[in-house]
Order: sequence, then structure tokens, then C-alpha cells
Amino acid sequence: MMLHFESDYLEGAHPLVLERLVRTNMEQTSGYGTDVYCESAREKIRKACGVPEADVHFMVGGTQTNATMITAMLCPYEGVIAAESGHINQHEAGAVEAGGHKILALPHVDGKLSAKDVDCYVSDFYANPSWDAMVVPGMVYISHPTEYGTLYTLSELQELSNVCRRHHIPLFLDGARLGYALVAHNTDVTLRAIASLCDVFYIGGTKVGALFGEAVVIPHLGKIRQLPSIIKQRGVLLAKGRLLGLQFDTLFTDGLYEHISRNAIAMADKIVAALKERGYHFLVPPQTNQLFIVLDNERLNRLSSKIGFEIWEKIDKTHTAVRIVTSWATREECVDELIKML
Amino acid sequence: MMLHFESDYLEGAHPLVLERLVRTNMEQTSGYGTDVYCESAREKIRKACGVPEADVHFMVGGTQTNATMITAMLCPYEGVIAAESGHINQHEAGAVEAGGHKILALPHVDGKLSAKDVDCYVSDFYANPSWDAMVVPGMVYISHPTEYGTLYTLSELQELSNVCRRHHIPLFLDGARLGYALVAHNTDVTLRAIASLCDVFYIGGTKVGALFGEAVVIPHLGKIRQLPSIIKQRGVLLAKGRLLGLQFDTLFTDGLYEHISRNAIAMADKIVAALKERGYHFLVPPQTNQLFIVLDNERLNRLSSKIGFEIWEKIDKTHTAVRIVTSWATREECVDELIKML
Amino acid sequence: MMLHFESDYLEGAHPLVLERLVRTNMEQTSGYGTDVYCESAREKIRKACGVPEADVHFMVGGTQTNATMITAMLCPYEGVIAAESGHINQHEAGAVEAGGHKILALPHVDGKLSAKDVDCYVSDFYANPSWDAMVVPGMVYISHPTEYGTLYTLSELQELSNVCRRHHIPLFLDGARLGYALVAHNTDVTLRAIASLCDVFYIGGTKVGALFGEAVVIPHLGKIRQLPSIIKQRGVLLAKGRLLGLQFDTLFTDGLYEHISRNAIAMADKIVAALKERGYHFLVPPQTNQLFIVLDNERLNRLSSKIGFEIWEKIDKTHTAVRIVTSWATREECVDELIKML
Amino acid sequence: MMLHFESDYLEGAHPLVLERLVRTNMEQTSGYGTDVYCESAREKIRKACGVPEADVHFMVGGTQTNATMITAMLCPYEGVIAAESGHINQHEAGAVEAGGHKILALPHVDGKLSAKDVDCYVSDFYANPSWDAMVVPGMVYISHPTEYGTLYTLSELQELSNVCRRHHIPLFLDGARLGYALVAHNTDVTLRAIASLCDVFYIGGTKVGALFGEAVVIPHLGKIRQLPSIIKQRGVLLAKGRLLGLQFDTLFTDGLYEHISRNAIAMADKIVAALKERGYHFLVPPQTNQLFIVLDNERLNRLSSKIGFEIWEKIDKTHTAVRIVTSWATREECVDELIKML
Repeated sequence: MMLHFESDYLEGAHPLVLERLVRTNMEQTSGYGTDVYCESAREKIRKACGVPEADVHFMVGGTQTNATMITAMLCPYEGVIAAESGHINQHEAGAVEAGGHKILALPHVDGKLSAKDVDCYVSDFYANPSWDAMVVPGMVYISHPTEYGTLYTLSELQELSNVCRRHHIPLFLDGARLGYALVAHNTDVTLRAIASLCDVFYIGGTKVGALFGEAVVIPHLGKIRQLPSIIKQRGVLLAKGRLLGLQFDTLFTDGLYEHISRNAIAMADKIVAALKERGYHFLVPPQTNQLFIVLDNERLNRLSSKIGFEIWEKIDKTHTAVRIVTSWATREECVDELIKML
Repeated sequence: MMLHFESDYLEGAHPLVLERLVRTNMEQTSGYGTDVYCESAREKIRKACGVPEADVHFMVGGTQTNATMITAMLCPYEGVIAAESGHINQHEAGAVEAGGHKILALPHVDGKLSAKDVDCYVSDFYANPSWDAMVVPGMVYISHPTEYGTLYTLSELQELSNVCRRHHIPLFLDGARLGYALVAHNTDVTLRAIASLCDVFYIGGTKVGALFGEAVVIPHLGKIRQLPSIIKQRGVLLAKGRLLGLQFDTLFTDGLYEHISRNAIAMADKIVAALKERGYHFLVPPQTNQLFIVLDNERLNRLSSKIGFEIWEKIDKTHTAVRIVTSWATREECVDELIKML
Repeated sequence: MMLHFESDYLEGAHPLVLERLVRTNMEQTSGYGTDVYCESAREKIRKACGVPEADVHFMVGGTQTNATMITAMLCPYEGVIAAESGHINQHEAGAVEAGGHKILALPHVDGKLSAKDVDCYVSDFYANPSWDAMVVPGMVYISHPTEYGTLYTLSELQELSNVCRRHHIPLFLDGARLGYALVAHNTDVTLRAIASLCDVFYIGGTKVGALFGEAVVIPHLGKIRQLPSIIKQRGVLLAKGRLLGLQFDTLFTDGLYEHISRNAIAMADKIVAALKERGYHFLVPPQTNQLFIVLDNERLNRLSSKIGFEIWEKIDKTHTAVRIVTSWATREECVDELIKML
Repeated sequence: MMLHFESDYLEGAHPLVLERLVRTNMEQTSGYGTDVYCESAREKIRKACGVPEADVHFMVGGTQTNATMITAMLCPYEGVIAAESGHINQHEAGAVEAGGHKILALPHVDGKLSAKDVDCYVSDFYANPSWDAMVVPGMVYISHPTEYGTLYTLSELQELSNVCRRHHIPLFLDGARLGYALVAHNTDVTLRAIASLCDVFYIGGTKVGALFGEAVVIPHLGKIRQLPSIIKQRGVLLAKGRLLGLQFDTLFTDGLYEHISRNAIAMADKIVAALKERGYHFLVPPQTNQLFIVLDNERLNRLSSKIGFEIWEKIDKTHTAVRIVTSWATREECVDELIKML
């Protein structure tokens, strides 16, 4: 039998989420996010973020959330600064460009963008006398955890926020896996810190216990105008919006979101400890639920019929890095089996 | 207590659909529509359509399906012919134009586009010596049932299809409420007829028993290239694609889709019979589950606190048309109550 | 020999314009509109408009000017209100939609949009509870003269301006043939009136004595941000920008622009007088340099090999309207010949 | 007095070009490129390229030509491979992205893209199992001369062409300064070679003797459909198209295009020889009319008030590279003066 560690969206939803959908199924509610469940979820999220006046919108998936919010935040002549490794730059099929905007890709270290690089880029840009022939940096995109499973420290996030505010460009945080960041060991970045340092961010549901759904939080509206029209225009408004409200309402009741995230971290910890003991190397230091393990190709071939993982990149002629992902749903017996195999 | 007839997406999903989601919830499947449930649903839909080689794609909602498929079918210099009353022209916040294409709006009769009007438009277009300064008609969009709940007859659909094929432009049918069309009285348009006459169409789930979801059917690929990339780029690919597969697989098992659609028609019939008896007028002849009832404004004001309906349009100074919608989930006791009130 | 009345861009430039280009040809200037000639032309235009602080930009042609300014003025979720007969809605190959915006077409009378229709449209829009599923009216486009050669009166223009300001949407005037409007008989609309009533407008050069070029005037910047970047992005910035500056500087020296426009009106007058005498009918009352003459089809066929005109529309089975256009360059002997033929 | 070497578009047009415009000024021609001068210019260009069936279109400037042709050549899900230093990636204000397409930037050596890098990129792309979540490489863009004034050799161009044809993606060559490439010393790339190796390319007029204008050559139509509509839609069709026809007709009569290009090379040669003698360093080896000279900052400051050049990039704390450009119009006395100053 095959073990599956390809991603954190292999299963459906956390049972409590599903139970809630079942229990409310035949209720009649108004559509498009105007129902009581959405309102309740919004209130809980505002509270968790410590921003009572925040605007909260629910969308179905990550790519559409990124593309919609980037369109909403940029003027036609502006682009978005992102790490070269950013999800929007690599794995969204050109969605940002299809919306008319260039991604201004900067180098990354383990998936992270540095405040210094952003500062230099923007300063150099405006120092160029012919900048009006170039794409204006109009916002900054980061992901937390990053695509390499790494985390910004609070001070790194503060510096990025400072640079953005000094240059008057908004900071957007893609939190598709935010739950796993919030409960990681040794992180000092809280949801409240994110809400105070970012201009827009989202709390991922698809990969953290929901069937689907991302909750966009806008602490202060800033230059975003008429978002409901943009959401409708991009076709990302769910008719039965309550499905999103119900899921997030459940995830933000009694700390469920963080509670279930901890399982992913505990399972990753167990794998990391075992692999380190056996002398395995990691492409980047493990911090959350995505583990990038370097395998020699012989072992890779042997394991690939037994363990579902993602081939990440070739390291050299004889080694390859693979990605293994745990989640809220990962069972310990599968992890034990995995460790036995590795 | 308020009665709700505002739309056909007030409730969640048909219990069998939900039960299936619950039963399979902790199974692990691959993402993005590559799982066995999607494949099974595709096979059942192909069979129901009588087109074994059809391409079937699942999307979440109607606006995104329309916008994605129109983008996929048109060249940059082409526009889409639609009835002036078409959903894409009225209620999708400019999604088609945001994708770069003009809607070439033609007059409608009770929401329907006539083959003759399309033929004249296209013929006149190419007869104009300076047509390359104009938007080229690149496809035809119709909805069935229309936004007025009306239905094309088989011969009308054949004529439209003939005109389109003669002019080499594809015919696209928006079937957001297709179930209610298929089981209407006196219709001669079957799913197989649609599959043989249209180039692309979709089978609506959101309004017919699913939590969400539309199944796009492409009998023959024609000029659509690399649709998976376009779907990904527009952010409309669901990570847990199996949710769509499971729902459509259930709806297309043992005739559930048509079976549950019949409830909407039966409930609408009952309302229509009662209202006709009492001398009410309809804005358009009722054919499916959307009823457009003309009320004098006094009655309108009295009822609006008791019955949820949509104000459709002013008829004259003292009369207004409202829309009442039944669905797979409408309960007979609510209909009886409604009739009592009207 | 064939007589040519197809359009007002049959010849090159007014000799004084060309002479200026020749005289300055080997001078070295900076590019992209930063040269002294552009600056001088801007000053003269500001003075003629009575708005010393106006922003003035030079572009090459009409379609690009319309598309660029509409993009600059609208948010992504907004559309542009225009007469159904508007040039942007008919003859620009979908340029506005390619930029992502819907044209909200309203009925016209002789090519003109009425303030009342605009007012109703915008008021009805915001009265609709689900307006965020519809395209927000974000600006109004008119042309003066219209595509039918007709003119707004000062009071009509004031009413349109009032409606726009009351609803906080900018008014944009396409003046591709503006010269011919300014010197028409019985017009009370001056350049200064336009500058005080419109938010953006342009003064056409291509059809009024220049080789090419349109001068966009923005009396007050309003919500347009960073126009130089948008102009560059759309590829409409001329490297040798001085060519535009030199042409407009010449046209706005010693009243040349209005002076040469008068020839078109005088020639049109002569044709109109002769045709009226002979009992010809006009599709719309002639006001400027575009004449829409109704011909019986026999005469049409006979004349079409001798006179270059544009077939405008079929009137009935036996009659057709053709368009005849005079310009700054029309010679009286050609007009005399034309009259003889008709 | 200031010497000007900032660019190759400081002056107007070659006197023969201008004379031709003057001589034909009052002739009446049809618009939009349908006149006899355009047709004559097309024939001469076809002949010079050795492709009698080539499609030739005239546009006004470089950015619009790049954006229009890239839009015409790509499907919505495709991007364009270009050197990181490519003009479309750096200095066109995001025009390609505004049209919906990502630029897939690869490293460059002295502005040149290598066939091997393109081959690896495309091969790796299709080897990636999840490539439908990534931007499909749909064409290759190169410039000749490059933005660094360097030239592809015939064998490099052949290899690029081979790679493109093997992968079925078109090769597009930006020839904004093509004249200077064709007459450079030691080049083995002829116009005929370009026409046989590229799928689309353009012959620059703006920087080589015309007032403005680029001649797009499409040896074989391939997948480009309905280009006239796309050109009109993007607003890049000149009403008085003959202005473009007349200029290219003149430039392609009696070898004028190459003849005047030689002046730029001769003047550049003289500067290079003098500077080498005096021990100056060049950022890249000089090959055409753009020279990238390394100056110590003291000298830079001293010269910047006397010589117009473009600051290119900082080399180190004490050195800066500047760009000096010669052209068809550069006068030898200015070059002598420049050499004296340096």
C-alpha cells in the first residue's frame, strides 16, 4: 500500500466542519456571503486578529484569492514585488500577468524576501530618471509559511512592513498554510502581529481543515475600492456563501484552527527527528509541515513506488530533493510507516 | 415567519450528495480533478450526453465558468453574441469584458435569441467593407432555461446550431439551471440533443442539488486549446477537485439530477395553477422554475414582508413584476402557504 | 477622374505644419515629449482653453487616445457610458473591452447622448439592490462633433456636465474633429466652455491639418494617476515626441487651427445648399463637415464609380444613405465638380 | 555648447524621406495602409528579404509593435521567453504583461540569449509533471542588435531558430536598430538570413532615418490570425498610413537604409579607436552604434555638463558605465569634438 505525503489537501474537511455543514444543510440563507454564518465568522476572525473594524472576505481558493487581491490593490501601471520562488511567480499559470500586472521577482533565501532587497529595489527604481518607462512597484507579496516551509521572524516582518510603509506600498501576505506557521516552534509571529503589520493577508482554509476557502483580512481599507464588484467580476463569489462562513466559523471556534494545525507540526517533528538521526540532509531547515529531503537517486527510485511525495529539484547528478507534507489529517501510524521505509 | 422564494440556491445540497461527501471525507485523493470520483463522474456525464469522447471539466460557479469558457473559445479580436438579457450581459459585473471581449448584444423575445437575428448580424458584419475595425462575432451564448425561465424548442435550437455551423462560430449553452429545463413539460430538448447541437455547454449543479459546481461538456474540442492551463490561470481549479466529482457522480447516478429537478417543476406548476385561477398575470409564460408575476404595488408592499422574492421590473406606475423561484428543495407546505398568501 | 470625399484624412498636413517639420528637421531634441516644442504647444493649448494649470499630453491617433484615457480614468470594475453610435462602441475593434471595460451603450438622437438618459441610467443603477453584480458606470464618453456630424449645444453640454458632477463621474469628450465643431455656424460651444465642462477631452489633429496627432487636455487631474506610465505601457508614446509638439504648436499659432477648419465648413455649406435646392434629403441635419445624403439606389450605383464616399446605411429597399466629408484641404473646384455630378 | 549622444532618435528624418513627404503631401490616398505607397514599400521589403509572399505591416513605434505582435502570436496561457535584459522586460512599462502575458526571463551574456538556455528551459518545462500550473513558453523574443549593441552570429541565430522550430514555438526578432546590425563589421547575418530563420521580425525606422515607423515582416503566417483586427483593436493603425509607406519606400530605394546606417558605424568606429588608444574600457565589446564606456566618477561628473549620454550602471564605487550612441545623423565634427573632450 502506498503512503501519501504529496500535499496537505489530500483529505476532505475536519469532521467538525463537515458536521456543521450537514447540520445546517436544509436551512435557507441569503447568498453571496450575506448570511449570518459569514457574519459570525467575520466577527470571530476580527476578534482573533485584534482588529474590530477589519474587512473580511471569503474566497474559494488560493490562486483566485491572490489574483483578485492583487488586481484590487494595483493600478494598471503597477507590478507586484515577490520572491522569485513565490507561488504567484511559479505555480499559478500566469494569473497575475493575465490580470495585466508584472511580477517584479527578487532573489530569495529559503523562500524569504528580505526587507533590504525590497528597499533597494524601490529606492533604485525612483532614482532612475526614466522610471516612467518601467513597471512601478505597487505592492509586496510574501507567503508565510513560504513555499519552502520557512517562516519570517517577527523582526523580519516588521522590517518588511516598515520598508513598505516608508515607500507607501501595501504589504500582502499569502497565508494559504497560515495555521502551520502560527503553531510552529520558535515563531514569534502571531495573527495579531500579522494583522498589524500587513495591509492585506489571508487565512488559508483549503490546506488547514476546510473543504476549501480562504479568508481575506483587510485591517484598513486603504486604496482598495469597491472590492465586492471586483470579486463578482472575477467570478470568485460563491453563490452559497454560507459554506465559507460555516467552515471558518467552525475553525475559529474554541481555537480549532490552531488546534488541528498542531498535528501537522507534531507529525513533521517526528519525521525530522527520525531522519536527522539517520543522517538525512534537508534542502532547507525544516520549520513547518513541508519537509524538503535530499535523497540519493537509488533510494528515490526505490521509495517512489511506496511513498507519494513531490519531486522538488535535482541537487546533483546523484541526488534529488523531494517534498513531504504533513497536515491536520496526517495519522501517526502513517508517519511511523514512513519512517520505517526511509 | 418569512417564506423564501428568492432563488434556487437557498439550501445546501441534496442529502445524498452530502452523505457521499461525509462518507468519503477522510479518503486521500490526488488533487485538481485527477481523482477517481471526477473520472467516474465524467464517464457518467459522457454516457448521459451520448458522447463517449466528450471532454468534461468541473468548475465551481456560473460566472467563472462563463468567463473561462468564453476566454478559451475566443481570439483576442472576437466578441460573443448574446441576448441583451443574457446573464453575462447583465449580472456578471463585466466579467467577459474584463477578459478582453465585447458582448455583442442582440434583442431577445422572452429571454431567447433567434437564429434569424444571429444570421443577419453575422452576414451583415462580413458584408461591411470595414469589418476589421469592428469586433468579430466569434461565438454565440445562450442560456437554457433563459434568465426568464423560458425554453428553446428543439427546432429553435437546431436553427441556432445550423446558423452557427454555417458561419463557423461555436454555440455555447449556459445550463446553470439545466435540470429544470430537461424535466419541464412539453420540452423536446434532451441532454443528447444539446450535446449534438452545441459546441460547449454546462450542466448546472449549484442550483440543482449540489453545494456548488458546474460540469462543462465539450463534445468535440474544436478550437479550444490547452484548457487546463486556462482554468488554472483564471484561478478556478479546485484543489480538492474530488468535491466536484463526488457531487456530479452522485447527481448522475440513478437519474438523481432529473429526479430532484422534477420537484421544482411540480411546485412551480402548483403555484401557476393557483395564480391563474385567481387571475394573476405573468410577465412571461411560465415554463420552468422561475415565475415572473405581475403584482399591483399595494399587494407588492403588503407581501414583501412575508414572502422573499426578487423585484424584477416596474411594469407601469401601479404594477411591478416579481420573480419567484422554486427548486429541488422547495417543500410543498411552503408552496401551500405561499398560495394562501397570494 | 474620381472625386474623393471619403474622409477628412485623405491628404497629408497643412503646408505650414509640414514646413515647420522641415525647418527643424536636423535639430537635436530630447525624446518622448520632453522637448521645447511640446512645451510651447502645451502652453498655447492651455491658453486657448483658458486653463493655465491644465495637463496636456500628445498622442498619435484617436483609437489609442480613447483606449488610453478610458483605461486611465476607470477602475477595473467600472464601464463607460456612451451613445450606442459612439465611435468607441462601433469602430474601434473592441479596444475598450480589450482594456477590460464594458461600454454601457445608451440610445442616441442623431449621435447625441442626453443628460436625462445618463441621469436615469446612473440613478437606476444605484437603486438596484444588487448593483455590485453589475458594471459600475464610471465615466461618460461623448464625441463633438458626433459620428453623425451633429453638435451639442452649450446647454446640452452643461446639463451633461452637471449630471456627471452630481454623480461624481468624469465626462470625456472625443474631439477628433473638434476644429470643425468650433467654427460651425450657430454653435455656442467654445474651447473654453469645453475645458470648463469636461474632465478630459482632446483636440484632434489627424483630421484637422496635422499629419497625425491628438492633444489630450486634462483641466484638473482628478482621479487619473501616473498617466505617463500608462501612456508608455500602452505603447502610445512617440519617441520623437517633438513631431507632435511642432504640429500642435503650429496649429495653435495665429489661430491656424480654426482658420483651416473654416474651409471644411464653407465647402460643406456649398454642397448642402446645392443639394437642398435639388431636393436631396439628409439622414441627419447637416451641422459640420460630415454630410449624410440619402440617394436612390440607381443614382448610388451611377455615382459610386465617380465619387468616393462611404456607404452609411440602407434606408429602405430603394434608398441608401452615403457619407460625404469635407476637410481643411477640400478644394472648391472639387466641390463644384461634385455638385455638378449629384 | 552641449554635445548630444543620448540616443539615435535625436533628429527628425533623413532629408530624402522628408522631401518625399513634402512632395506627396497634397495627394489624396485611402487610409490605414491601403494606399499605393504602402504597397510599393511592402514589395521592396519583400524583395530585400527574399520572401515574395511575406506579410508586411507598418506600425508607429517599438513598444506598440512588440506588444501587438506578442499578443498576436501567443495564446492566453502562453508567455514569451526573453533575455532578462530584453527591452520588453525592462523599458516598456509592463506592456507585455498588460496584454496578459508573462515574460519568461532567462540570463543573458552581453544582451544575448543562448539557444542552449532556451532549449533547456523548454525541455525542463515539459518534463515537469505539473506544467499546466505554469506559464507555457509560447515564443522567443530576441533583439538584434541587442540592448547592449551586440550582435548574434549567423550560427547563433541558426541554433536559436532550430531550437524554436524543434519545439514548435515562433522566434520573434526586434530589429528597432536593425540597419546598424546589417552594416556592422564582421557580421554574417543578412536580412535574408533573418527572414529565413525568424517567424516574425521588424525593420526599425524610428532610429534609422524615418520620422517614425517599424516594418513588421511575417515570412509565413503560421498561427497569427486576423492581424488587421488586432492592430486596429490596439489602436496602432495610423489613419494616414501612407506616411509609413512613403518613409519605408524611400528607405528601401537604392539601398538608402543600409547606406545611412553606415554613418553610425563609421562614427562609432572612430570613437572606439580613439578611446581604446587612450586606455578606456568598455562594458561590452563595441559592435554597432551603442558604446558602453566605463568612466571614473570624477571624469563622469566633469563630462556630464558637456556631453549628453545615458548613465547605464554603476560598476563599482568609483566607476560608472555610460552609453553613447551614434546614428545615421551623427556629424563627424561632433565626433571629433567628443573625442577631444574624452
